[in-house]
Amino acid sequence: MFANLPEPPYYSVIFSSQRSDKDADGYGHMGERMLELAATQPGYLGVESARGEDGFGITVSYWESLESIAAWKAQAEHRVAQEQGKREWYADYRLRIARVEMTYGMTEITAEVVSPSDA
Amino acid sequence: MFANLPEPPYYSVIFSSQRSDKDADGYGHMGERMLELAATQPGYLGVESARGEDGFGITVSYWESLESIAAWKAQAEHRVAQEQGKREWYADYRLRIARVEMTYGMTEITAEVVSPSDA
Repeated sequence: MFANLPEPPYYSVIFSSQRSDKDADGYGHMGERMLELAATQPGYLGVESARGEDGFGITVSYWESLESIAAWKAQAEHRVAQEQGKREWYADYRLRIARVEMTYGMTEITAEVVSPSDA
Repeated sequence: MFANLPEPPYYSVIFSSQRSDKDADGYGHMGERMLELAATQPGYLGVESARGEDGFGITVSYWESLESIAAWKAQAEHRVAQEQGKREWYADYRLRIARVEMTYGMTEITAEVVSPSDA
């Protein structure tokens, strides 16, 4: 369930969403398809996802660059899924794109980046 | 459930975890306490959280700066909770600190930042 990621920096897409009560089967099927498809995209690094019984979920996908995120957003089959998501599957969502700069595991710092812009 | 956040840039702490099967009551109680306590810390902006029935969860907290994240990590009561988390509540976890640069809502770009380092 945990993504195995390289050392930072890289980018994350933090997608938080509230499911509507519509079309659970179609949503589940498309979700699996999008995870498969994302994994084939250039710059894809990994994904982690959780959704509670209340229908609120967070999926974080990880990418090499902003360019790879933009290409995934524009991917044709993914665009269709995004539109169907807006129409049917989500009551609401937020999407935040963030540059990963430090990572920790359960016991220690595993990687840290200090770029010129942070100094 | 959605955090109401200012325009970027700001920082996110992406905490993904797999719960152990231990101490559900203690974990729930401490989780609520930590959410309350985090909300009183300088630089705190908001939090979103989801955990599935399989015990895998993602909590993303949002902060004004790396300094405010470091201060929260070092906060005394939170340190006790972190240690108990490692010993009891989590089978494993990952923590990633990332600078939010762009946000989208359900229908459009809501905010975007281009810093000198991204140009």
